[in-house]
Amino acid sequence: MTGYQREWLVQDAVAGLVVTLMVVPQCLAYAVLAGLPAQLGLYASILPLLAYALLGSSMTLAIGPVAVVALMTAGTIGPLAAPGSPEYIALAVILALLAGVALLTLGLLRLGFLAQLLSEPVISGFVSGAALLILVGQLGPLIGITPHGQTAFDLGASLVEQIGQFNPATLLLGGLALPLLWWARRSMAVWLENAGVRRTLAELLTRLVPLLVLVLATLAVVILDLDHGEGVAVVGNIPEGLPVLHLELPSVANTARLLMSALVIGLMGFVVSVSVAQSLARRRMERIDPNVELRALGVANLASAISGAFPVAGSMSQSVASFSAGARTPLAGVVRAAITALIVIGFTAVFERMPRTALAATIIIAVLSLIDIKALRRDWKYDRADGLAWLGTALGVILMGVEAGISIGIGLTLTALLWRSSRPHIAVVGRVPGTEHFRNVARHQVETDDAILALRVDENLHFGNAVPIDERIRAEIAQHPRARHLVLELSSVIHIDATALRMLEGLDHYVRAQGWELHFAQMRGPVLDKLRGTALFEAVTATSGGVPFPSTHEAFVRLAAPARAEQNETARDPTGA
Amino acid sequence: MTGYQREWLVQDAVAGLVVTLMVVPQCLAYAVLAGLPAQLGLYASILPLLAYALLGSSMTLAIGPVAVVALMTAGTIGPLAAPGSPEYIALAVILALLAGVALLTLGLLRLGFLAQLLSEPVISGFVSGAALLILVGQLGPLIGITPHGQTAFDLGASLVEQIGQFNPATLLLGGLALPLLWWARRSMAVWLENAGVRRTLAELLTRLVPLLVLVLATLAVVILDLDHGEGVAVVGNIPEGLPVLHLELPSVANTARLLMSALVIGLMGFVVSVSVAQSLARRRMERIDPNVELRALGVANLASAISGAFPVAGSMSQSVASFSAGARTPLAGVVRAAITALIVIGFTAVFERMPRTALAATIIIAVLSLIDIKALRRDWKYDRADGLAWLGTALGVILMGVEAGISIGIGLTLTALLWRSSRPHIAVVGRVPGTEHFRNVARHQVETDDAILALRVDENLHFGNAVPIDERIRAEIAQHPRARHLVLELSSVIHIDATALRMLEGLDHYVRAQGWELHFAQMRGPVLDKLRGTALFEAVTATSGGVPFPSTHEAFVRLAAPARAEQNETARDPTGA
Repeated sequence: MTGYQREWLVQDAVAGLVVTLMVVPQCLAYAVLAGLPAQLGLYASILPLLAYALLGSSMTLAIGPVAVVALMTAGTIGPLAAPGSPEYIALAVILALLAGVALLTLGLLRLGFLAQLLSEPVISGFVSGAALLILVGQLGPLIGITPHGQTAFDLGASLVEQIGQFNPATLLLGGLALPLLWWARRSMAVWLENAGVRRTLAELLTRLVPLLVLVLATLAVVILDLDHGEGVAVVGNIPEGLPVLHLELPSVANTARLLMSALVIGLMGFVVSVSVAQSLARRRMERIDPNVELRALGVANLASAISGAFPVAGSMSQSVASFSAGARTPLAGVVRAAITALIVIGFTAVFERMPRTALAATIIIAVLSLIDIKALRRDWKYDRADGLAWLGTALGVILMGVEAGISIGIGLTLTALLWRSSRPHIAVVGRVPGTEHFRNVARHQVETDDAILALRVDENLHFGNAVPIDERIRAEIAQHPRARHLVLELSSVIHIDATALRMLEGLDHYVRAQGWELHFAQMRGPVLDKLRGTALFEAVTATSGGVPFPSTHEAFVRLAAPARAEQNETARDPTGA
Repeated sequence: MTGYQREWLVQDAVAGLVVTLMVVPQCLAYAVLAGLPAQLGLYASILPLLAYALLGSSMTLAIGPVAVVALMTAGTIGPLAAPGSPEYIALAVILALLAGVALLTLGLLRLGFLAQLLSEPVISGFVSGAALLILVGQLGPLIGITPHGQTAFDLGASLVEQIGQFNPATLLLGGLALPLLWWARRSMAVWLENAGVRRTLAELLTRLVPLLVLVLATLAVVILDLDHGEGVAVVGNIPEGLPVLHLELPSVANTARLLMSALVIGLMGFVVSVSVAQSLARRRMERIDPNVELRALGVANLASAISGAFPVAGSMSQSVASFSAGARTPLAGVVRAAITALIVIGFTAVFERMPRTALAATIIIAVLSLIDIKALRRDWKYDRADGLAWLGTALGVILMGVEAGISIGIGLTLTALLWRSSRPHIAVVGRVPGTEHFRNVARHQVETDDAILALRVDENLHFGNAVPIDERIRAEIAQHPRARHLVLELSSVIHIDATALRMLEGLDHYVRAQGWELHFAQMRGPVLDKLRGTALFEAVTATSGGVPFPSTHEAFVRLAAPARAEQNETARDPTGA
């Protein structure tokens, strides 16, 4: 704050005003997408912005209603109450509250790393699939019908069934708005530039078209009385007061279900926010702290709940708008919040007669840019497993719903991870002549000892690779019939979990039954601390004096057959064969 | 077969007969536990045994009804049909069919590694939790009431509510059977030995007590007419013919739900079977092939479906009984199947008046030995994360149901794995004087070059650790203000996934913006093959001639500042400082 300059204040104020006008249509539209009265989109754009401006670590991330979060909100509450009803609104508030609590808790527990469960292909596939699902869902409102369903299949079937009941005036309004918005997004800036308008002004004007379209469409409804006369669906009235106050609390079962969904919605919002914040931070060399972001987003959702609104997240389009309008600091967000509050106070009556078809057109154009088939092509080409995760997530979202899609994506990613870790790297090692170093026999000229099989395990031992490591070691044992000592070099192992410990116990029994002995070498501190005190450790270190061999070299010196040891002495002579 | 000896035939036949008599009570009891007529437990012990004898890789694993699988079967079908009804039976058959198809498919696709999702603590916690849940559920039938619910909480509440309606005659029968069975399991063998009976005979007699109890209880019902006179619940009649034939096929939604449950039941049965088979194989030095087991268990479940029965798995108690009765080869299983078939044909009428309370007592005693608190104590002491996974799984099963428990367990295990991999090992490396080797600067006396920051990444780069690796590298960059080259030594990296690729792209942008260059050294073949052709690869290898540096040494020679290079020459002199 001390370094704040006066001209920044002007820049931030102008940016705040311009951005507010730019993003109002999306705020309204995403509230409708969530099954809520449009004005709630503005409610969700006041206090949450202030909360994030105070607590967030990104200078440019803009918080507010977001398409995928709105879709997930509708998916969660839809089965529990009728869209737009007081119960529905109250459940949305509770969902924002729970998402806020969940995110804040995760942030305070520093569990930000959980977001890493979602790989890039899963996030990208999820966003693309959700965008397509939203698009299909908005085709109904665009022509004046209300298809039902939570999957593209159900929505499509419902759409086809009702298509004969379309509303001509609605279709006309939507049919005018959609191509206009499309043209504004694709070609208008270039067209204006060619007509001699300055580039920044051209881009600014382009971004204001959505608001203009909404204003014109609302004017058309008011002047021609399209809502009463022609049956054009409009946004309508909003119940007064905080909705939670007149709600019976949901049942325990519903609350548990809401809590789970709130966690998923919160985490998804968090992941999307962080990836937006990071891509913006990259341009300005800022640093994003995931745990700070978790807490800030948690408080922003609590603020949204207090406002009587629904879950929010960091918005790519709002952030980019703010960034390119010249916002310098989070103060731009404060200005936005103030202007939005003025709009809510002064113009509420305006929204009542805003036609839903215009909002549907806004949503459709906004989500079109989220469908990123190029990412699928790139991931598929780079790595089949990543491509499959993208495709599985997107198809899961489209055909089975949002939460199924995320589950499938996480499942595929973890399966790929497990599959890779189920092929662990293990090398038979031998001594580099004349040294105390041991290297892979397959890649180096090294000396071995017939009595000793020395294996270097190159990965942590855990449930995901215990079985294949066990199998690989037993296969090596079978191939070394003359050996009597198995030395495991654990220099790269920093963790052995309970499953792997059980595997090593089994291995110890197995080698004993064959007349072998098992030894550990180069065990690292953390592993030593945990193994000490287990029966396995006592048994295995009996030969080496109660501790593992400090090095594979020590193990060789101690365990080599007498005759062999002599041969090794010869081999150690640099002039030897 | 050619090596089969004549005396083995006698041993196998005797073992087959004895084991059949030993396991009949459990087969009947687990069918009842699954909500099915008791006889189905015998149906499930004929064809599945033959199928496994033909296809399985274990010589001693006995297939049949298993407590946890029966519990999961009841949990899946319970909400869809009334227990014991023809619909219920038909759904159980379909469940066995789907489980068989799922396992067979996984086996043919060689996806046995999927079972590694279930770590030892999760399996152990699951079995203990399920055993407790079964125990609570059987207290009702033991005293003649029918509590409802799928969680220990619901079952307990239902039990307390109905406890006044207990049936005196049932309570008396069960109250006699339970301590007798308990004593037989705990003390009878020792008591017989002390009385001068040979040890093997004493153990054999002990194992026949459950059958004796069932026979005596049934005789009591028949002689005293307890079922009609006193209202003692009995097993009752079984519908004739294959149940699937008179079933309307379930709805699409129910089939999808069944398919998911069948997969979980199949995998759980598979995991339990393999761990039983492996602990038995260990004693006999046999080898278990998970993919062969998947296929064999799949076909065994198909065989159970054909028999009109329910999902089966490898049974610990049956295998141990068979093993200690002296079974030499799978032929013992064939003998068992034949004798069981004779029992089904000849004695069906007997089962009709068998009292359920005696079966409940059998189940309670059988599952008591599955509750393994010692495993929890051991895992907790060894590793908090493993202990938590045990506890979370067990509590999840008890309080939220079987599938919730498994999900919680897998979730906790994977969270621990992710958490560990989110702390990847990265070392700053320098040259060991006088050599071309590079080692960790924190642990070795090595030479570095101010212009070069060389980092060795010791783990595969993937979605689970991309963020922390990125952060760690940026922190190192900040600590080396005079360097201009970042060399990543990738000698231990054999995979980079799409998420990590995106991270490296971001890192490349970041270092360029700071006036640095990014380089790769010692990249391994598989990574090279995948990265070649990406924009990142082109950009990064521009300096090194279109390929990564073959070694960190080469990178140093090429990138060292001219002045530095000279210093290094001096340093390379063995007499230098």
